Amino acid sequence: MIKVGIVGGTGYTGVELLRLLAQHPQVNVAMITSRSETGVKVCDMYPNLRGHYNTLAFSEPDAKQLGAMDAVFFSTPHGVAHTLAGELLENGTRVIDLSADFRLRDTEEWSRWYGQAHGAPELLQEAVYGLPEMHREKIKNARLIAVPGCYPTSVQLGYLPLLEAGLIDPSQLIADCKSGVTGAGRGAKVGSLLAEASESMKAYGASGHRHLPEISQGLRDIQQSTVGLTFVPHLTPMIRGIHSTLYGQLTADPGDLQALFEQRYADEPFVDVMPAGSHPETRSVKGINTCRLAVHRPNNGNTVVVLSVIDNLVKGASGQAIQNLNLMFGFEENTGLTAPALMP
Amino acid sequence: MIKVGIVGGTGYTGVELLRLLAQHPQVNVAMITSRSETGVKVCDMYPNLRGHYNTLAFSEPDAKQLGAMDAVFFSTPHGVAHTLAGELLENGTRVIDLSADFRLRDTEEWSRWYGQAHGAPELLQEAVYGLPEMHREKIKNARLIAVPGCYPTSVQLGYLPLLEAGLIDPSQLIADCKSGVTGAGRGAKVGSLLAEASESMKAYGASGHRHLPEISQGLRDIQQSTVGLTFVPHLTPMIRGIHSTLYGQLTADPGDLQALFEQRYADEPFVDVMPAGSHPETRSVKGINTCRLAVHRPNNGNTVVVLSVIDNLVKGASGQAIQNLNLMFGFEENTGLTAPALMP
Amino acid sequence: MIKVGIVGGTGYTGVELLRLLAQHPQVNVAMITSRSETGVKVCDMYPNLRGHYNTLAFSEPDAKQLGAMDAVFFSTPHGVAHTLAGELLENGTRVIDLSADFRLRDTEEWSRWYGQAHGAPELLQEAVYGLPEMHREKIKNARLIAVPGCYPTSVQLGYLPLLEAGLIDPSQLIADCKSGVTGAGRGAKVGSLLAEASESMKAYGASGHRHLPEISQGLRDIQQSTVGLTFVPHLTPMIRGIHSTLYGQLTADPGDLQALFEQRYADEPFVDVMPAGSHPETRSVKGINTCRLAVHRPNNGNTVVVLSVIDNLVKGASGQAIQNLNLMFGFEENTGLTAPALMP
Amino acid sequence: MIKVGIVGGTGYTGVELLRLLAQHPQVNVAMITSRSETGVKVCDMYPNLRGHYNTLAFSEPDAKQLGAMDAVFFSTPHGVAHTLAGELLENGTRVIDLSADFRLRDTEEWSRWYGQAHGAPELLQEAVYGLPEMHREKIKNARLIAVPGCYPTSVQLGYLPLLEAGLIDPSQLIADCKSGVTGAGRGAKVGSLLAEASESMKAYGASGHRHLPEISQGLRDIQQSTVGLTFVPHLTPMIRGIHSTLYGQLTADPGDLQALFEQRYADEPFVDVMPAGSHPETRSVKGINTCRLAVHRPNNGNTVVVLSVIDNLVKGASGQAIQNLNLMFGFEENTGLTAPALMP
Repeated sequence: MIKVGIVGGTGYTGVELLRLLAQHPQVNVAMITSRSETGVKVCDMYPNLRGHYNTLAFSEPDAKQLGAMDAVFFSTPHGVAHTLAGELLENGTRVIDLSADFRLRDTEEWSRWYGQAHGAPELLQEAVYGLPEMHREKIKNARLIAVPGCYPTSVQLGYLPLLEAGLIDPSQLIADCKSGVTGAGRGAKVGSLLAEASESMKAYGASGHRHLPEISQGLRDIQQSTVGLTFVPHLTPMIRGIHSTLYGQLTADPGDLQALFEQRYADEPFVDVMPAGSHPETRSVKGINTCRLAVHRPNNGNTVVVLSVIDNLVKGASGQAIQNLNLMFGFEENTGLTAPALMP
Repeated sequence: MIKVGIVGGTGYTGVELLRLLAQHPQVNVAMITSRSETGVKVCDMYPNLRGHYNTLAFSEPDAKQLGAMDAVFFSTPHGVAHTLAGELLENGTRVIDLSADFRLRDTEEWSRWYGQAHGAPELLQEAVYGLPEMHREKIKNARLIAVPGCYPTSVQLGYLPLLEAGLIDPSQLIADCKSGVTGAGRGAKVGSLLAEASESMKAYGASGHRHLPEISQGLRDIQQSTVGLTFVPHLTPMIRGIHSTLYGQLTADPGDLQALFEQRYADEPFVDVMPAGSHPETRSVKGINTCRLAVHRPNNGNTVVVLSVIDNLVKGASGQAIQNLNLMFGFEENTGLTAPALMP
Repeated sequence: MIKVGIVGGTGYTGVELLRLLAQHPQVNVAMITSRSETGVKVCDMYPNLRGHYNTLAFSEPDAKQLGAMDAVFFSTPHGVAHTLAGELLENGTRVIDLSADFRLRDTEEWSRWYGQAHGAPELLQEAVYGLPEMHREKIKNARLIAVPGCYPTSVQLGYLPLLEAGLIDPSQLIADCKSGVTGAGRGAKVGSLLAEASESMKAYGASGHRHLPEISQGLRDIQQSTVGLTFVPHLTPMIRGIHSTLYGQLTADPGDLQALFEQRYADEPFVDVMPAGSHPETRSVKGINTCRLAVHRPNNGNTVVVLSVIDNLVKGASGQAIQNLNLMFGFEENTGLTAPALMP
Repeated sequence: MIKVGIVGGTGYTGVELLRLLAQHPQVNVAMITSRSETGVKVCDMYPNLRGHYNTLAFSEPDAKQLGAMDAVFFSTPHGVAHTLAGELLENGTRVIDLSADFRLRDTEEWSRWYGQAHGAPELLQEAVYGLPEMHREKIKNARLIAVPGCYPTSVQLGYLPLLEAGLIDPSQLIADCKSGVTGAGRGAKVGSLLAEASESMKAYGASGHRHLPEISQGLRDIQQSTVGLTFVPHLTPMIRGIHSTLYGQLTADPGDLQALFEQRYADEPFVDVMPAGSHPETRSVKGINTCRLAVHRPNNGNTVVVLSVIDNLVKGASGQAIQNLNLMFGFEENTGLTAPALMP
């Protein structure tokens, strides 16, 4: 049994960590911080947690207390993990950061997209990008994990087999992604009101989104060359889920695409390659850590289409964070992550 | 580890049994039947079950094979359990019926509401109404359980403390209930299409609904006298959840209603009396077996209002069925039913 | 052609006035005010208005300019109309107030519910409660209209025939009301986010809601005696619509309830009594000024149930305001209000 | 005032014709047919029409009676207009077909996609494809109109300026389209239930969809050469609306794309080019005949992205049909189509 803390636990990824960790037999959530909700019990703020965590209350973030944890999750806006991670690591506490603070290796690019100087460039060297399907071994030995973003997870897992096999032109990638509204966080914004976001569909950030450099960096790591990616995210009237529709131009006879995907992910506990011809639904992963994929080659032509679905709060955030924790502490990789999706 | 079978597993209560039992350490689902889907694997029909039940496929309902089970759930339309339950009981198999077949003790009333003769009146004597909060001891020794309907569960649990204490006039009960669309089942009906049922609210069955006699019988059992109940169900544009708003006329000084409710349910693992002044949300029980209650007395007047929420597929059907199974087989009552609700 | 102004046009009732008045052949919206959006064109803020009102922009509220209008609508929070109405009336401008400022005749009661002193008690004498089905003649000659609230409109129209006929006990009324989320306004509140309010149902204000004294006052006006009303509003996961389920206890043989309702509303252009046995859906009035009603007497018993649906933004606010304007200026009562509901 | 008939009026495009034509001052709907609902009044089937069409009832489709109309709309499954159109045209009745019967000029291709022989190849010569933005003059003189499909309308209007200007590679077009569920019609299918389609997103027909050949034919007509189009439709949890996200590869310096789009559609009453940087929402066209477009060139790179939204039942079906009728009969093109969208 290890002791973990959560910094910034009032947002959606924080409560999702609590929901999932309630089922984790090896983890004790000993501390959760929130400046604005100090003293409030988590089960009073989140009624789904009534009957769980009966005494756990939000506290002020205190580096010393956090340093007594075996691991600390950051469910914070960008910039916070920068200021605390170093001290925690020195105390021997592992850090699993769900924010964007350690995702980009290029600090200038980070500053451009996040509008401030990078606060902990000295830690970038050892930060590991927490996509187990690419970096499992590094994760096992990591002290500091940058949990991938939600869009980046779904896009990279979809392109991975094609890029590794060198089958598509990396300069002409198109990722058309659709997300439920929890991707926009729990902040009170007019555009996220039910009355505004329901019964409607729209793109956003078509000319640039913070996840673009993260995806591009990840695809470059696979491809070992520059990539040209057009990424258009869309807001979809649902609570959870990301559906990424990925387009690539074949550069060679791809052979059996279905077999390629099945083999690449044969041993992955959280990637499910669906049967040929399938169209995965986001609801099939509601609440769980699985990414379901299907690959199509319409009309046997030059364009390959990959359909990739995840739950943005689980495989796209808190579930993947726990998957990383499991790897770091030597637990079974799927510990606490075995429930089926809620459907219908 | 016991072996269970599910008869009629293609509907929503069937797949919900599978979802929940996947987390039950003492139960092996050894058989699931469906005439229309024989030979189809459950994980091919329900993609949320991929990675679970990898080999389980629907089979023809066969009494002999079902008789080899320790327990059989019926997730069938009314009339089916009538024809099979007797033979199973003779073989020593326990029967947990999620349909309406054994809920009413009065066969004539049953016939009036269901439009056919009762098919197994000889079993009514021993059928136990599976509401553990009222009949726990009988359930432990039962061979045949009639799992309560979804509306009846939420209404009875809400009225129970008031009626037991003799505080409200039993002749003037009003239950205004709102249900998500899974309450209407998985049949393809125009009225249940997203294009018809979304962005709208309506009552139905205002002049009579099959759950009315079941609720009335249950309330009579509590009250030990006749009851006058007006029950108006409503269709709400959501997938899961029932919100019952219950009205009663006080006949005496009720004292501390909050304390009354808290004491009545202090030892109940699946009834959560919320703090005074609360308004429970259906999403706080999404996917779980809990009923959350709040009691109000507006303006300190003569009318008491109880707010009662459940997930119609869990405490209103499959979860309660498993709770009954746990009691019948001596497992911890909450075995397999411990996950927090999915929220947001 | 008359000139009208709208004060506080950025909220939902403001944009709904614009949407409806775009179809009104006798009205020119010459002015719309908003402190926060001064200078912004309405069609830039509300893309559904692109192609309409191409030059109309929000301006500072200026009493002199507003005084040049034939009529001014207030789509403001409470307290604003108090400060401006008097001066406008002196200038001969008619005032149609969609806020709560002039709905209650008792200033002390107003203060209790709205937490501030009433700002214009001297105008209460001449303010007319703008429910045409009760006060049509007074409205025609009014200078100052208090447009009824959304819940009060649906509840009063439902009880009206029963109370006028003296058929139900006025001391035991129960109004169980369900509203879409636009009823909570366009303010950015966490509880109104799609991620929070979707896929869920809850009551609110069970122990007291600001619409309660307004409804009670209205019912007293019908009944000519005190009323005892229990009013429980609920938040429903849809954008528009109110469904009120109204319960009353019969005090006499009611005779033919269907005929009673049909006769009472035979000449009303915006009340539709549906055929016996109907269950009106809120979507059947989406975007229109109609209230649809159905009356039930379950089991021929003592309780009568009225189902009443409106669009909270139309008959519950902006449409009713225009209906009042039509009456005040001698236009056909349904001018600009003739389109069918949007369904599906 | 002209007399029109509607064949097959029980589906969503039929009721939408009725909703829109209720506002059309020059059209009298004299006849509506439905085999299954003969004798039923339209306002009994569609409660939003109560107060409109009070006497209009469904009748058997009778060629002679239909032949007395000035124009007949077909809101039927494919194959029906084939059998009736010829006789109507001989009688001098204009035919506006909302089905796919006359959309494809190649009868073999039609047969491949619709699984039956083309029933009226002799009429294809004179059938006009009813996209006014391309074929306005032909439409004015047409006797037989093939109203474009919903996806084809949104895709063609988005690509039109780029293809006409020869700016993008016609062999590498990608149309990623998202539709509300009314696109699947009013048939009772499990996949269209609220409980199945809500809170989820999925692609369908990734390997081939009936609208693909129609779009390709339309784009070829613009481009005057073959096109290579990848078209992936998606089901979105909303009632109405199509959002098409269109990708093209620039083959030349495009200059000012915004100006190109604005100039191309400057005189079009139903195409709205939004300001540079916009992201149109489907709700901004809910219930209206407008297509709103925005054009983006991310990162000033080689890929151009067009965002195109319509209401699938209006500009994607019934509204466009009426726009065609207006052109054919010399009415103002926007007659009956001037209301703003319903938002929120």
